[in-house]
Amino acid sequence: MEHTPINARVPDIEELYTLPREDLATSLLDRDPASLANLFAQLGDEALADLFTKLDPSDAAHLIRKLSRAQAAQILEEMEMDDAVDVVGELEQKEAQGILTAMHPFEAQNLRELLSYPPDSAGGLMTTDFVALSPSVLAGQALIMLRESGEQARRIPYFYVVEPSARYLEGVLSLRELVLSPPNTPVGELVVRSPIKVHVEADQEEAALLLDQHNLRALPVVDDEDRLLGIITADDAAKVLLEEAHEDIERLGGSQPLEEPYLRTSIFHLFRKRIPWLLVLFVAQAYTGSVLRLYQDTLAEEVALIFFIPLLIGTGGNTGSQTATTLVRSMSLGEVDPGDVLRVMAKEMGVSLMLGAVMCLATIIRAWTLGVGIGIAQVVGITALCVVVWAALVAAVLPLALRKLRLDPAVISGPFITTLVDGTGLIIYFNIAHFLLSLK
Amino acid sequence: MEHTPINARVPDIEELYTLPREDLATSLLDRDPASLANLFAQLGDEALADLFTKLDPSDAAHLIRKLSRAQAAQILEEMEMDDAVDVVGELEQKEAQGILTAMHPFEAQNLRELLSYPPDSAGGLMTTDFVALSPSVLAGQALIMLRESGEQARRIPYFYVVEPSARYLEGVLSLRELVLSPPNTPVGELVVRSPIKVHVEADQEEAALLLDQHNLRALPVVDDEDRLLGIITADDAAKVLLEEAHEDIERLGGSQPLEEPYLRTSIFHLFRKRIPWLLVLFVAQAYTGSVLRLYQDTLAEEVALIFFIPLLIGTGGNTGSQTATTLVRSMSLGEVDPGDVLRVMAKEMGVSLMLGAVMCLATIIRAWTLGVGIGIAQVVGITALCVVVWAALVAAVLPLALRKLRLDPAVISGPFITTLVDGTGLIIYFNIAHFLLSLK
Repeated sequence: MEHTPINARVPDIEELYTLPREDLATSLLDRDPASLANLFAQLGDEALADLFTKLDPSDAAHLIRKLSRAQAAQILEEMEMDDAVDVVGELEQKEAQGILTAMHPFEAQNLRELLSYPPDSAGGLMTTDFVALSPSVLAGQALIMLRESGEQARRIPYFYVVEPSARYLEGVLSLRELVLSPPNTPVGELVVRSPIKVHVEADQEEAALLLDQHNLRALPVVDDEDRLLGIITADDAAKVLLEEAHEDIERLGGSQPLEEPYLRTSIFHLFRKRIPWLLVLFVAQAYTGSVLRLYQDTLAEEVALIFFIPLLIGTGGNTGSQTATTLVRSMSLGEVDPGDVLRVMAKEMGVSLMLGAVMCLATIIRAWTLGVGIGIAQVVGITALCVVVWAALVAAVLPLALRKLRLDPAVISGPFITTLVDGTGLIIYFNIAHFLLSLK
Repeated sequence: MEHTPINARVPDIEELYTLPREDLATSLLDRDPASLANLFAQLGDEALADLFTKLDPSDAAHLIRKLSRAQAAQILEEMEMDDAVDVVGELEQKEAQGILTAMHPFEAQNLRELLSYPPDSAGGLMTTDFVALSPSVLAGQALIMLRESGEQARRIPYFYVVEPSARYLEGVLSLRELVLSPPNTPVGELVVRSPIKVHVEADQEEAALLLDQHNLRALPVVDDEDRLLGIITADDAAKVLLEEAHEDIERLGGSQPLEEPYLRTSIFHLFRKRIPWLLVLFVAQAYTGSVLRLYQDTLAEEVALIFFIPLLIGTGGNTGSQTATTLVRSMSLGEVDPGDVLRVMAKEMGVSLMLGAVMCLATIIRAWTLGVGIGIAQVVGITALCVVVWAALVAAVLPLALRKLRLDPAVISGPFITTLVDGTGLIIYFNIAHFLLSLK
């Protein structure tokens, strides 16, 4: 594997190409203006467009600000439309306008249209580089049009057939289909009608999931009246799914996702991302103090009950966390949805009874090694069983309910379920203790 | 968006194409043999190859068992090489051999070679569908060869130039470069030498990360002597990264990743995936019982200390979980590696001091609302600060250390750090209590 360490000195152009994204960004952003201008002049527009495509859009926007409007416009024209729109979206309104006016009017118009959609919608993800045909075009003509189209459009293995005046999407045609048909067949006769498609205002994750689930290389994006506005390509869909998965990871860890790489994020920014959840969880967990105060006489009477508090609530939290993450993942893969709630609960009931039985035994063994009496051992064993089942059921229902309410289940699932189970687990514990030990 | 519900009746062929992956699998696997045979006959090899590509390899393997060897062989030949190898990899050794002998010898040989690499290595991920050229081939000839190559190879925008006898990788050439050069230039003069590449035995995640970080559409795979064996395409790399992210999510939740969709996984299988970690975490947490027993006199003397146990260890766990997940994610994106340990610790020290100060205040307020004395309020406030800083530092070092030891940091990071912080947090708590309250 190639591995070029960052030089303390400025790397030359050859070296630049072998730097991974992060190091490339650091190497470019750290340069003084003169060295940067010199480098940009050496590279030329096409190579610069490649370089900017490789960077995160926010870094590319930083660099594009250092170019003249004319050069910035040329580089954006060289970039693929969906990459260019991400970079322009990072600029200030005024900067963006300046650059757009310097661009070819047709490209500028396309970019403006793409910019008008929310970045996390299907419209914000789509590109307008694709080949649309009238139904009357012949198969042979279509192949010629393909050869004349841009590089990006040529990579998309589907043609879209639209009604000529209003661009209603009539159907989709694969390159293979086209090549195998007699050249004088109108494409309108070859298309697959009512193809899989997505509304321009749909969430980008929904669009990405459709591409993934149907193993498509591109997905048409339409408006309310079924007019074809653009397409989403499989590579952009894959990026969205990966981004969402990484955001889920952070949310499950009880933190808001970072926009910038960790090492470049300031301490204060990290603090701001974490403190809200820590405080929310603290407030949510604060009632455990009241529960314990309520049962302080019980605890004074049987001090040994205290020994098992972290163990029992910990086990409940771990069980809940297992169930919740499995369900968050399954929902994000489209395998489970809120309508499956009864099947999920039945399954989790079965699993948690088995888990609970094992944990009951483990807890009794631990009680024995701690040398507490048989009464307490019984209490903690039965509590372990009950807490495990309770945690699994809470963790089964909560993520599905959140999804139903159109909230992101990952936000709340990890530490939140642990916190919820902590207090309710204590209540279960003390009730069982009262019942079995006949305490006051 | 199109949405076709699964019919209770068998869907017709048109409908089949609009089913998402999971529903398609269910619809095909639930059919009786006669209906399946009938459907397969109607579809033809090419459409079947498309259908099988869409399914998970294990489902596709289930279905391919129901075909004759000859038909199975034909369908695998229609599929892209890297998809076909995933399906064959799911078959029993004997079944696979039977089908391979019915295939075209060249394709069978390629498949056998690909099967010989571990599925999670670069070799297991690569395809052998690509265009390799001798350095003496002229640019114009290369373009003709491209037109004659297979559909899959045509989609890859790079050519690989290899030394003709032993296939040493000499360099890479983009389609654009080729088109813009005079047709009578030998490709050997046009290539970029020492391109980014990966060893055939490297982990598939390492290869996928290289593609992502360099924004490549394909990555050459070489052996010890730098011979070109295959290439990895960007779409396969994206799938690997997504799969790894989803596995990280499950591991962070303290469960082993599932191989099958949740609703199709049996209760016993779910049990087996979860019980090992629950027990490991239980054992790891069991010492909290000993810690509490050790300090039982302290607790008897100051019962109010008990009220804050879940709150303090919960806050520590939540802080640790935030840090650990952020680092697991940053490492999986290649943004942070074990060499950054000092920078990470410095950053986490800064962040956790700020977080700790806020949580100290929050805890003191909670102590006041619970009506405990000023002494206990001081103890719990200072403990909150110390536990937050301690948890952040443990969670900063542990994932980096695990990566350094070549273990998956996600395995251990979530519930494990919580568990570790639980017990050590208690020790911090009681020591501070002893010191400030002068208890026995």
